[in-house]
Amino acid sequence: MSKATIKDVARVAGVSLKTVSRVINNEPTVKEATRKKVRAVIDDLKYQPDMSARNLRGNKSYAIGLVYDNPNPYYVVDVQEGVLKACREMGYSLQIHPCDAAHDGIVQELCDLVNNSRLAGLVIAPPVSENEAITNALAEHGIHFVRIISASEPPKGKAPCVYVNDRAAARSVAEHLIDHGHTRIAFLSGEEEHLSTPERRAGFKEALKAHGISVDDSLVLPGAYSFDSGFERATKLMERSDRPSAIFGCNDEIAAGALAAVKTSGLTVPGDVAIAGFENSPFSQHSRPPLTTAAQSIGEIARQAMMLLIAEMRPQALAEGEVQTTTAEFVPELIERPSTA
Amino acid sequence: MSKATIKDVARVAGVSLKTVSRVINNEPTVKEATRKKVRAVIDDLKYQPDMSARNLRGNKSYAIGLVYDNPNPYYVVDVQEGVLKACREMGYSLQIHPCDAAHDGIVQELCDLVNNSRLAGLVIAPPVSENEAITNALAEHGIHFVRIISASEPPKGKAPCVYVNDRAAARSVAEHLIDHGHTRIAFLSGEEEHLSTPERRAGFKEALKAHGISVDDSLVLPGAYSFDSGFERATKLMERSDRPSAIFGCNDEIAAGALAAVKTSGLTVPGDVAIAGFENSPFSQHSRPPLTTAAQSIGEIARQAMMLLIAEMRPQALAEGEVQTTTAEFVPELIERPSTA
Repeated sequence: MSKATIKDVARVAGVSLKTVSRVINNEPTVKEATRKKVRAVIDDLKYQPDMSARNLRGNKSYAIGLVYDNPNPYYVVDVQEGVLKACREMGYSLQIHPCDAAHDGIVQELCDLVNNSRLAGLVIAPPVSENEAITNALAEHGIHFVRIISASEPPKGKAPCVYVNDRAAARSVAEHLIDHGHTRIAFLSGEEEHLSTPERRAGFKEALKAHGISVDDSLVLPGAYSFDSGFERATKLMERSDRPSAIFGCNDEIAAGALAAVKTSGLTVPGDVAIAGFENSPFSQHSRPPLTTAAQSIGEIARQAMMLLIAEMRPQALAEGEVQTTTAEFVPELIERPSTA
Repeated sequence: MSKATIKDVARVAGVSLKTVSRVINNEPTVKEATRKKVRAVIDDLKYQPDMSARNLRGNKSYAIGLVYDNPNPYYVVDVQEGVLKACREMGYSLQIHPCDAAHDGIVQELCDLVNNSRLAGLVIAPPVSENEAITNALAEHGIHFVRIISASEPPKGKAPCVYVNDRAAARSVAEHLIDHGHTRIAFLSGEEEHLSTPERRAGFKEALKAHGISVDDSLVLPGAYSFDSGFERATKLMERSDRPSAIFGCNDEIAAGALAAVKTSGLTVPGDVAIAGFENSPFSQHSRPPLTTAAQSIGEIARQAMMLLIAEMRPQALAEGEVQTTTAEFVPELIERPSTA
């Protein structure tokens, strides 16, 4: 059997070529009944639009680039799957572009990426998305993009953006520790160029202040989003005579490292020291005891980001009312587990 | 400053357009001195070949698809980075295609992927790569691909292939346990459709036999490549009066789950039960105690696979002698850690 063409689809469905094309491109100017009929014929005939030919004919690109600089494979794969889910729904392919956010030539690199691979637009994850020098330059080059960032209120600027309210969620985690009687709580930060670090730390401090607990700066420690960094800092904390009764890791890897350090010091969790993390990664689920954390739906955040990008690039592709704004907020939710019980 | 063109590069380097083109396409018919000079000018002028235009002019594609069905983010990200490294060296972009290996329409899905996105070829990871019905069908459709598989000898067939000798490595892990005096060793399998499972199990059994230890089939348990599956199986093993003195998990997640189960049962590791895993993932490094395992260089395996694919698709792109065969073998190496000490 030879491959079905768009003409076959139009003939069998009894509609014009243009109507089939509109259905394929998800344009909203097609009646729902017609759309369903054409979709059914497309499935029946196993017709597949040739994306490449579509690109040439329409002078439009249907490839998206995903830009990230994150050492956490769980985060990376969840973001990829969320973006890819929306890509598949909307007929886009996905190119990945891990990069070095601190590289001098990053703006040129991303412009070249878009031009050389003829990308329709970029989905940009933290921390690249949180560097305004980079995103402003991309906007000046006329590149379509959507950002995923950490923020406690809608960001300024016209570019579409999904913001994760880490601050509110970190406040909940800290309040949970305070509710369990802790007043000496250490906070182990991640890298500062990830806005999630200052945002989560701000939420932590806000919770302390709201409960009349003064912040002991000697318990708020800089570091990196890694198991080893959590282990090292917690080991030193456990050697102190005024050691904290609780540790809040800026992510689950830090918290898992802190857990290992506390246990290695001969202390118990949560008996001697309560520990909480952030992100609900497998690190928090598989630790013994499992870690209290805050869950962020990375996949859904990424999918939503891709839909905002499409709304920006090709508003006619979305049904009316499907995406009404250029920003969307997500608030991670506290998950209580035995590490703080 | 307007963007440099290929003509600018040719003029500044004092060579023909054709020579610049050959350098860009990594063709070996250029003298090394000329190649260096042209590369320097390309860097100086920040010239970037337009991949899209290149695709149209040469009727060649410079996009690769990476196909996988693996729930382990560490594996997925390492494979992506390895393939991407070779892609960047050789001027290709990378599209990702996670899929369901068991899906009925997988062959059609992959053919459509290649045709619709005009991919030059596919890098296929386990278990899709290990399903001959799929790969034979792809070969019949004339699709270029390279496979990454688990095997103890070079695979038959013409398609390029990187094979990981899991059997030899599993033999080393088992012998390490035997050397430490263990004769009752449980083996916790992963999914059977991953050839790594039967291969690693075969290596385990070979080691027992070589040391005159009979295999107790009640200790060789089916299951899945997951923490939970390791936890469940080890929990049951610990309840047996004839419990094993050692557990070999088919990967580190299984082993980490087994470790949690043994500790939950009130037993110690390695005092009461020694535990070994496989893959040297962070699960093995971050467990307490850290787990003995076998290290596979997934990134290098994936990079090598991409180079074999290029050698197959475009032999002129590689310098002579750079890739001499269509297969390459990798043998994971034993890493001894406290969980078996």
